[in-house]
Parts: sequence; C-alpha cells; structure tokens
Amino acid sequence: MTETLPVTDRSRLRRLYERGHFDRDTINAILDAQPMCHVGYVRDGKPYVTPTMQWREGNHVYWHGSSASRALRSETQAEVCLTVSILDGLVLARSGMHHSLNTRSVMLYGTAFKVEDPAEKLQKLGNFVNHLYPGRYEMLRPDHEQDLKATTVLGMEIAEGAAKIRTGGPSDDEEDYALPIWAGVIPIRMEVGDPIPDPRNLDGVEMPAHVRNFRYGG
Amino acid sequence: MTETLPVTDRSRLRRLYERGHFDRDTINAILDAQPMCHVGYVRDGKPYVTPTMQWREGNHVYWHGSSASRALRSETQAEVCLTVSILDGLVLARSGMHHSLNTRSVMLYGTAFKVEDPAEKLQKLGNFVNHLYPGRYEMLRPDHEQDLKATTVLGMEIAEGAAKIRTGGPSDDEEDYALPIWAGVIPIRMEVGDPIPDPRNLDGVEMPAHVRNFRYGG
Repeated sequence: MTETLPVTDRSRLRRLYERGHFDRDTINAILDAQPMCHVGYVRDGKPYVTPTMQWREGNHVYWHGSSASRALRSETQAEVCLTVSILDGLVLARSGMHHSLNTRSVMLYGTAFKVEDPAEKLQKLGNFVNHLYPGRYEMLRPDHEQDLKATTVLGMEIAEGAAKIRTGGPSDDEEDYALPIWAGVIPIRMEVGDPIPDPRNLDGVEMPAHVRNFRYGG
Repeated sequence: MTETLPVTDRSRLRRLYERGHFDRDTINAILDAQPMCHVGYVRDGKPYVTPTMQWREGNHVYWHGSSASRALRSETQAEVCLTVSILDGLVLARSGMHHSLNTRSVMLYGTAFKVEDPAEKLQKLGNFVNHLYPGRYEMLRPDHEQDLKATTVLGMEIAEGAAKIRTGGPSDDEEDYALPIWAGVIPIRMEVGDPIPDPRNLDGVEMPAHVRNFRYGG
C-alpha cells in the first residue's frame, strides 16, 4: 500500500471528505500531471500567490526563478503553500447550486529551503529541463556559472498536504431530475499545438523527439 | 485611453518591467479569458492557496463557495491575493537559463468583502452562471433559500495589481544562435471536448446553445 501523509489541521478536509486523498501515489500523480503551480507566501502579513513551474523528485517538490525575485526570497526558509490544480471539466447541473468543477488539485504546506550547493543546484536545474523535455538538458549549451548564480532553486518536502479530486456527472437534488433541464459535463483539457521552430534555428537542425512527442504533464 | 491602476510596492515589477501591464483593459481581458483563479489568504500567519472560479463585473472580481468553507471565512474582510494565470506556450531556448513560458497572468491585491444582501447575492450567483453559460441561469430550477444561505459570495475591487505577459519565441544569448540546437515554442491551450449529457436527462431535452457553443474563457 502507498504511504499516506498525516491528516493535519491544515490539510484536513472539512467538507466533502470523500474527495480528499492523502496517499502519496495520488498526490504524486497530480503533481506530475501539472507542471504549473501557484505558490503562496506571506510578506508583511499579507498573502502573495505566484504562478510558476514545479517538478517533483521523490518526496520533494522543487521550483525555481531569478535570485533577484522577491517571491523566491520571501519564500526561502518561510512557510509556503504550493497548490497545483487541473481543470478536467465543467459540471452543469439542474440548479445553480449543484454546478461544479471536475478538478484534480493538490495543496502542499511546508517550509521552503534553498538548494545552496552549486553542484546540487546544477543537477536540479538539469532535472527540471529533462522532467519537461526528456534528454534535452544534455543537448543544451552548458549553464554558465553566472546563469547558476542568477538562479535560485527552492525545494520543499512533501510531508503535509492533501489532494482533492472530483470526477463524474452532476449530482442533483432527487426531485430536480424530473425537470426538463439539460445537465452534463463539458470536458476540458490542455491541448499541445504544433511546435513553432525559432526562425533562427540553423539549417539541418531537426526537431528533437522531446518536442515532436511532447505531452503536457508527461 | 484605458484607465491604469496605480503602481504600488506590491504590484511593481522588479525585473522584466516590460512584461508588466497596469491598464484595466489588459487586466480585464486576462480575467475574462481564465475563469480559474488561485486565491491566497493568511491564517495564523501561514499562507493558503485555494483554486476556485472567479468572474468579473466591471471593476470588481467575485468568487464563491460554501458558507462553511474555512478559506472563504478566512478571506472575508481580510487581505487576499487573487491570481489568474494562462499558460500559452513553453519556450525552448538554446541554454537552460533562457527556457521560459509564454503566459498571461494577473495578480490582484485587496481586502475581500462578503456580499451580504440576499437579493444582491442571488443576482451575483446568477451572473456567475450566465458569465460561463450565457442565458443558463434562467433555465435552471430557481435557487432555494437554503442554497443561498449555504453559499458565500466574496468580492474585491480591482484596485491594486498587475498583469504580466510574455509572448513570442526564445531570447538567447547572441553567441548561442550559432549552436545547432533546436529552439522554439510549444503552444498550449485549453481544449473543450464534446459535452457529455447526463444519462438522467429527460427524453427530448436538447443540448442548449450555451453548451453546444461553449468556449472556455468566452
């Protein structure tokens, strides 16, 4: 059986308990399916929410940005909430009340740490590129030392949090099923378009497999 | 000319200033194109980020949820950060450093207020349904009074915040353009699938235009 995270005051679902999941397999699958995340932090007592990309390595999640970023500096050694969400569909019910969303989301809580060791940081950044585009990092111009200095990598242990999942059709009040109202689900998904080569690509440089076969979220 | 929001300590872009936009037209267009948002709030000094849907009415943005929701209760009369983001593409450069994302995002800051007046709340909820599905609210079973009581609608004035937009191809270091590395953009967009009618729809109930012609983000 997959390991489960402890249910804490922060992560406990107060309503719709059946939609909550605390096992690592479920949480990891959602993190791996959605690179975009929104990281919340507190500065001068006020909340900030920054969209960025995350990637997972085992029981840790990582994100990165400019070393000059106020968000990353505020998050370092501070409490953060990292939220990932995937919209799978819009649920149309017979009353406004029962309209809903089919979503998969994860909220993770913890203290972010900075990856300080230069070799480890380089490794993490390579992992990030290869996580999105398998094998790409080794094809790139190697990182300059100043690139590395200009970049901060933050990480957090996946130790507290929950996944929340809703699937399926509308769930209406029993008497409302007798009404002549169209109900159902409008599916939504992330679509990958045809890659657009940079006009300055050199002649003879072919589109690599990690672009040709790119799938968003693996 | 469109009105612009003041540039404040919170909303000022510290880097890549050219990607920042403070005019209402740009901010509104992004809010209208992406119903999903992530609302950040602070509870016991710690950050929380909750995915939910937002809709805009003039210079206000609204969201809603269960009256029992800890998130909504914590956000009421409190500082929040409401962030909307749209991923338009993945930008692949010739070095790891210059990989990027084509995104449109908005971060709004302010104090959330609760829509207390029952008639106004009912109106707002109807507006929300019709914002997503034009004309649908009038086709639905009217809201029960208990539905209304069970639902909280929060709003915030669009008064402080910024949009951030990146478009186009990679921007590499000049000397790296000589390298035989494929660079370019992988476009991403939200795709709407074929609507799935609820098996319990009554015979003869046709799919309405707001479902047939549904476009995510209008």
